[in-house]
Amino acid sequence: MITISTIKELREALSVHKRAGKTIGFVPTMGYLHDGHLSLVEQAKSESDVVVMSIFVNPLQFAPNEDFSLYPRDLARDQKLAQDAGVHYLFTPSVEEMYPRPMLTNVSVQNITEALCGLSRPGHFDGVATVVTKLFNIVGADKAFFGQKDAQQVAVVEQMVADLQIPVQIVPCPIYREKDGLAMSSRNVFLSKEERSQALILYKSLSRAEQMVANQQRDVAVLSNEVRNLIQSQPLAEIDYVEVKRYPEMSDIEILKTGDRILIALAVKFGRTRLIDNVILTVVD
Amino acid sequence: MITISTIKELREALSVHKRAGKTIGFVPTMGYLHDGHLSLVEQAKSESDVVVMSIFVNPLQFAPNEDFSLYPRDLARDQKLAQDAGVHYLFTPSVEEMYPRPMLTNVSVQNITEALCGLSRPGHFDGVATVVTKLFNIVGADKAFFGQKDAQQVAVVEQMVADLQIPVQIVPCPIYREKDGLAMSSRNVFLSKEERSQALILYKSLSRAEQMVANQQRDVAVLSNEVRNLIQSQPLAEIDYVEVKRYPEMSDIEILKTGDRILIALAVKFGRTRLIDNVILTVVD
Repeated sequence: MITISTIKELREALSVHKRAGKTIGFVPTMGYLHDGHLSLVEQAKSESDVVVMSIFVNPLQFAPNEDFSLYPRDLARDQKLAQDAGVHYLFTPSVEEMYPRPMLTNVSVQNITEALCGLSRPGHFDGVATVVTKLFNIVGADKAFFGQKDAQQVAVVEQMVADLQIPVQIVPCPIYREKDGLAMSSRNVFLSKEERSQALILYKSLSRAEQMVANQQRDVAVLSNEVRNLIQSQPLAEIDYVEVKRYPEMSDIEILKTGDRILIALAVKFGRTRLIDNVILTVVD
Repeated sequence: MITISTIKELREALSVHKRAGKTIGFVPTMGYLHDGHLSLVEQAKSESDVVVMSIFVNPLQFAPNEDFSLYPRDLARDQKLAQDAGVHYLFTPSVEEMYPRPMLTNVSVQNITEALCGLSRPGHFDGVATVVTKLFNIVGADKAFFGQKDAQQVAVVEQMVADLQIPVQIVPCPIYREKDGLAMSSRNVFLSKEERSQALILYKSLSRAEQMVANQQRDVAVLSNEVRNLIQSQPLAEIDYVEVKRYPEMSDIEILKTGDRILIALAVKFGRTRLIDNVILTVVD
């Protein structure tokens, strides 16, 4: 594996492979890698000749009151994990390399950014859309691999790629969970033992809602109330949102119908750590 | 020359040349071609193996009260002119091909869009930045050729390309003028004989300002007043703006200093036809 921190060197390295007709698979991350990230690498390896992973904690997608400076970072550890997973090029640009002067250009996506994390984190998805566009332009990948834990992010990126005809195929990959069901997240490292234990309610409550849909519950208010009540049974949990939306449009829905594809998504704080999780399902008879 | 109207076919045609290592030069236009456009083709031919011209009157960059529906169009004539000029691929997508569903994604550039045409035409440069990004993604050109008549547009596109690391080189090309000095524009066709005659004041007034700078005039207010007074000597002229800005930053300037690079730009209506023109110059001792 080769670690590269400048745009110019990465482009030069990849141009050799492109000229040789090799396909490029791209896994953009913010580092502090966990098995969820590595499952994306696994998928990228199975569908591409050359795997590029980026590690960049993007200041544009953090509001001033958020955890940009506290976001966990450990490049040495990430390099070892990425290399062992089979990454060929690890791209680790500095903030100065990505934003050498004030960014005047912004990429934004309407509608599907207005609920859930877009509502809780104003400007977040502009930062995501802008940096992802820039990374796509730098890497020039054939395919890019994103985890469905950030389901709204996947919807935003897919919309943006279609709208702007960005020549890359987005491959959404399933959420990767700990054995006890907690969705893998770099932020899990911040949880105390007790918070970690209570956070299991997130996946339990989503699974409960999924089961209710399978048992013919069609009333979205009933579903989201059940999820809320379960989460509130845990004293350290502070709900940011629990929402059911059509996916990937992110539009409102009140009564489910057969064939509807929906996202049940939540964001919950445990102490200062904000966790998200979701399930995507299609309503069947 | 091959005329292509779908994104898929254009990409397929160009991929053959790219795989063969050929360079692609791109001339984006709104059609109704004149010698200014053809001078861009000439430049593109001299710097690229394959020349692609697009003709697309982009609804996103016209406000509801503007001349989108009236903008002159004549594809048969354009095809002949483009072919004779040496264009290899003429890309003529329909609005439905470019925008098959509502566009939710917007590319915008701050600061340099806030004066001049950005002030007179709110949303115009968002429409330009968005469609140019999309066309760049579709064509995948090595170089793109833009006329300096749209000096602010050139500044916006160059900023966007740098900010988003779009892998294309922007080549600004000089304004192409009629023998009597009127800047070539597809909209000139709408001028009555008398308007056409009075419109000569635009370049005359810009040349006068340029001469004043050469003669050590350093006061921007004096320069722009002189331009305004000259234009107002023509009864059919209605000034939209006359501005002097640093170029390409588009920031304000009051007193010129040696080494300053400036844009003297104007937009003036003759009847219902709005014309723009400009000079870019560097202040020397």
